[in-house]
Amino acid sequence: MSVPSAILQLICPDRPGLVSELSGWVAANGGNIRHADHHTDLGAGLFLSRIEWALEGFGLPRQSIAPAVAALARRLDGEGLLHFSDAIPRAAIFVSRQEHCLVDLLWRVRAGELPMQVPLVVSNHPDLRELAEGFGATYVHVPVAAADKEEAEAAQLALLRQHGIELVVLAKYMQVLSSDFLEALGREPAQVINIHHSFLPAFQGAQPYQRAWQRGVKLIGATAHYVTEELDGGPIIEQATVHVSHRDEVEDLIRKGRDTERLALARAVRLHLRRQVMVYRGRTAVFD
Amino acid sequence: MSVPSAILQLICPDRPGLVSELSGWVAANGGNIRHADHHTDLGAGLFLSRIEWALEGFGLPRQSIAPAVAALARRLDGEGLLHFSDAIPRAAIFVSRQEHCLVDLLWRVRAGELPMQVPLVVSNHPDLRELAEGFGATYVHVPVAAADKEEAEAAQLALLRQHGIELVVLAKYMQVLSSDFLEALGREPAQVINIHHSFLPAFQGAQPYQRAWQRGVKLIGATAHYVTEELDGGPIIEQATVHVSHRDEVEDLIRKGRDTERLALARAVRLHLRRQVMVYRGRTAVFD
Amino acid sequence: MSVPSAILQLICPDRPGLVSELSGWVAANGGNIRHADHHTDLGAGLFLSRIEWALEGFGLPRQSIAPAVAALARRLDGEGLLHFSDAIPRAAIFVSRQEHCLVDLLWRVRAGELPMQVPLVVSNHPDLRELAEGFGATYVHVPVAAADKEEAEAAQLALLRQHGIELVVLAKYMQVLSSDFLEALGREPAQVINIHHSFLPAFQGAQPYQRAWQRGVKLIGATAHYVTEELDGGPIIEQATVHVSHRDEVEDLIRKGRDTERLALARAVRLHLRRQVMVYRGRTAVFD
Amino acid sequence: MSVPSAILQLICPDRPGLVSELSGWVAANGGNIRHADHHTDLGAGLFLSRIEWALEGFGLPRQSIAPAVAALARRLDGEGLLHFSDAIPRAAIFVSRQEHCLVDLLWRVRAGELPMQVPLVVSNHPDLRELAEGFGATYVHVPVAAADKEEAEAAQLALLRQHGIELVVLAKYMQVLSSDFLEALGREPAQVINIHHSFLPAFQGAQPYQRAWQRGVKLIGATAHYVTEELDGGPIIEQATVHVSHRDEVEDLIRKGRDTERLALARAVRLHLRRQVMVYRGRTAVFD
Repeated sequence: MSVPSAILQLICPDRPGLVSELSGWVAANGGNIRHADHHTDLGAGLFLSRIEWALEGFGLPRQSIAPAVAALARRLDGEGLLHFSDAIPRAAIFVSRQEHCLVDLLWRVRAGELPMQVPLVVSNHPDLRELAEGFGATYVHVPVAAADKEEAEAAQLALLRQHGIELVVLAKYMQVLSSDFLEALGREPAQVINIHHSFLPAFQGAQPYQRAWQRGVKLIGATAHYVTEELDGGPIIEQATVHVSHRDEVEDLIRKGRDTERLALARAVRLHLRRQVMVYRGRTAVFD
Repeated sequence: MSVPSAILQLICPDRPGLVSELSGWVAANGGNIRHADHHTDLGAGLFLSRIEWALEGFGLPRQSIAPAVAALARRLDGEGLLHFSDAIPRAAIFVSRQEHCLVDLLWRVRAGELPMQVPLVVSNHPDLRELAEGFGATYVHVPVAAADKEEAEAAQLALLRQHGIELVVLAKYMQVLSSDFLEALGREPAQVINIHHSFLPAFQGAQPYQRAWQRGVKLIGATAHYVTEELDGGPIIEQATVHVSHRDEVEDLIRKGRDTERLALARAVRLHLRRQVMVYRGRTAVFD
Repeated sequence: MSVPSAILQLICPDRPGLVSELSGWVAANGGNIRHADHHTDLGAGLFLSRIEWALEGFGLPRQSIAPAVAALARRLDGEGLLHFSDAIPRAAIFVSRQEHCLVDLLWRVRAGELPMQVPLVVSNHPDLRELAEGFGATYVHVPVAAADKEEAEAAQLALLRQHGIELVVLAKYMQVLSSDFLEALGREPAQVINIHHSFLPAFQGAQPYQRAWQRGVKLIGATAHYVTEELDGGPIIEQATVHVSHRDEVEDLIRKGRDTERLALARAVRLHLRRQVMVYRGRTAVFD
Repeated sequence: MSVPSAILQLICPDRPGLVSELSGWVAANGGNIRHADHHTDLGAGLFLSRIEWALEGFGLPRQSIAPAVAALARRLDGEGLLHFSDAIPRAAIFVSRQEHCLVDLLWRVRAGELPMQVPLVVSNHPDLRELAEGFGATYVHVPVAAADKEEAEAAQLALLRQHGIELVVLAKYMQVLSSDFLEALGREPAQVINIHHSFLPAFQGAQPYQRAWQRGVKLIGATAHYVTEELDGGPIIEQATVHVSHRDEVEDLIRKGRDTERLALARAVRLHLRRQVMVYRGRTAVFD
């Protein structure tokens, strides 16, 4: 894990020879492939590839790889994304009052499970300041009232720019992001990850645990997904469920759900950070 | 398991002393309690109890227990259901063309896992006749066309009466039962069990696997539930899920789903037959 | 949950009428039963019961309940344990260098999931002092060298007495407790809970993840159990497993295992604290 | 699935360029790769690859592929196995008295889930003849007494040869195969798959459910593995577990275990048949 690698995520129209062409390109430049995984979506006629190779010994200097990848993608009429495993993204975590996902993420970052930095925690409540600061993050309380949502989002955007944020994780942030905000982020949908406390598409929207209890389901779940303008409709990265019984009150569902939320969100963020997730046509391919 | 027992399912308004009163009633009649389980729904103010005791040595003769239970329930302003573990219900299985749930149920009956008899299999297709007959069931093909659905259901009802059926299991029966049919069954909703191939309430209605694939979920599920007039809205008995990935096509979801459907349905039918399920207010308490 | 209750755990030879006798005793004293669960071990001829009732309105004053329970147990030739839900036990957590279980437990205590106090954290390493103290616990570094193990254990015992400890949780404490130590704790085996990082009885002893990797298993697990003199042989409270693949190196097993360990240990400690676990004949009955 | 493909399983010493070399070889011959998956065992210094490509349009005639693959493997100082997806192996299922795995496998073959033929069922008991014959298999009762085990195994070997068997599935066959028998099969260990009714390495040997009950475990499992001379020690393909409680008697463990056994064995056989399993150094890489 300690030796840095380059990771190429490429998507292009399917045709014979692509696996060979991509691995051949890496090999021709002296690259030693560590992982190579591909997927063909037959219905869509698309080929998706994730190739990871050691930077050590690779013939192209680091700064020349991106242009070379861009040329390769153009030649294949596709799109390529290049990542370096030693580039540690700067992430902001958005929270409201519940701390469990925030604690869990910050602990995992410290434990080395999640290759990211968290310089910034944003909340519409003041409650979790001490916790965030204890892990070295700047905590900014940005109240969000119905009347001044636009203003609040402008402040949030400024914070994200100021801290050079590349990834936003909504860790039980109980506010809906406007489409203006999402657009203004100026990045593809893959850049905001949310945890929803139900096994989507069941119980989209508010109060999923209460509604799950009402419906009398025998399992509850959590869904980590990229955020798009369609509420709770973005590409799903990870889902998990846990059994419940008639003995469980709503508060038990909430308690049990916390563990499911923590695990699903942590796994999703890890998969994202290791560049194991590719998004296309409203869905994900997860190369794990 | 071989020594017969009586099983009382009682539901009544909650008040102190009910556990003692019920177990005291059994003990006063010389009954040896094997299982006693209770649940209080605080919000509804309801007390649910399931008590099972050995018939051997019980002071009341078998035919006198039901009236005694009825008197007890009246005294508690509640409702009681009495079952005997050695009364093996007669069940009809409704199928369409898919055989996996039917094979599974019939095999489990033969293996002694499901204490029921299956004298009758009803289908809107002729395909599974040989299979059903191989297990000793009468197979009746009742075609269901949009135009003559009423007629078909009348034929089905006649068959159920003729075979003395107490439980109907919809084992991938791809037709919606009319509310007239359900009413005419003349029994409470607990008497028809269906398997739906999604983790309800997600993907209610038709084509759940196709829609699950479209949505890009990372888990698929199955739900066994009692049938009510509200389509896919009846009390849930059992749910199970299994992980899927981007590599799974719709046909893979269907294949993986078959195992989930078989297990969820078999567990639900077993719970029902062992009188471990109590239905109230659109939900179930499962005493397992 | 906030209204205090009494919890009786009783074990005695099986005979007819016990459920009625116990619930009758509670009712006769005006108690309102919240939960009543029983189990008969037919092979052992033993009856186990857990009854929980509201203290409010109960006819016996709090201090008179224990003697009354003792008399009841004597009459039934059994043993009874009485607990009050509002008595919050004082627990010590033993750790070595790994922090994940410690963080998790302390966080859950703070979040109200685990009804215990943690005044003391004991470790054979100095590493986790800041963490423990951040949650308000006293951290004592008691080095354990092979030569002076006896001395170290004497110091640990003194600490436990000094802090009035009723429960010891071994949260990845990588030392074996001597039988002298366990005896000197002067309490039944139910009072020390350990998390072992394998699905016992597989991989008893040291290095379970390394050995699991060597064996090429497709799932790894964790086991929370009461500690007895038989290493890794005490009564099991909770077990959990997670799938692994050939892609997982030993370090991946360790990482995935951390989540399994945290969950299994937290569930076991919660079950213990809510007095849902009864120990007999080297095994547990878990009334959940 | 319907268009036939070639599948290459190759194992060789690791070195840079192997992914490119293999995919380049396929592409150079005009092959369209459907799946390509690789694994490097860093500790062992080994590279494992599974490549599947469409036969349609491939430049080499079918009968020339094997020699070409052999040459390729030689050049890489490794070993290659070539399979064709439309070559449906002939399998024999060995059973004793329990039918659940046999029924399940035969049903899945008929349902198209398992691409194999089952011309032969061998048993040391006469019980399951009708069942096997109902699915069109020849059923041979070969009694195995301690005194004449050698003779019995000779008869079994003759049957396997006579029916052209390439895969033996031990579906709850309660006899240990001698090392002579395994050797005489004259094939690599990958050719006999067994289902063991515990999560190995726990409860190796006889009576695992009884011993699991004795130990008081909270989960039971099943393990599908290739058979080697070391009893219950062969490479593991698939494992599954299910939760049990103190309420479960040994007979409940056996009942719950049946479902786990059926699923684990069916999954393992499917993985094997689709050539997704590679065996090396006593372990498996499962490319799913």
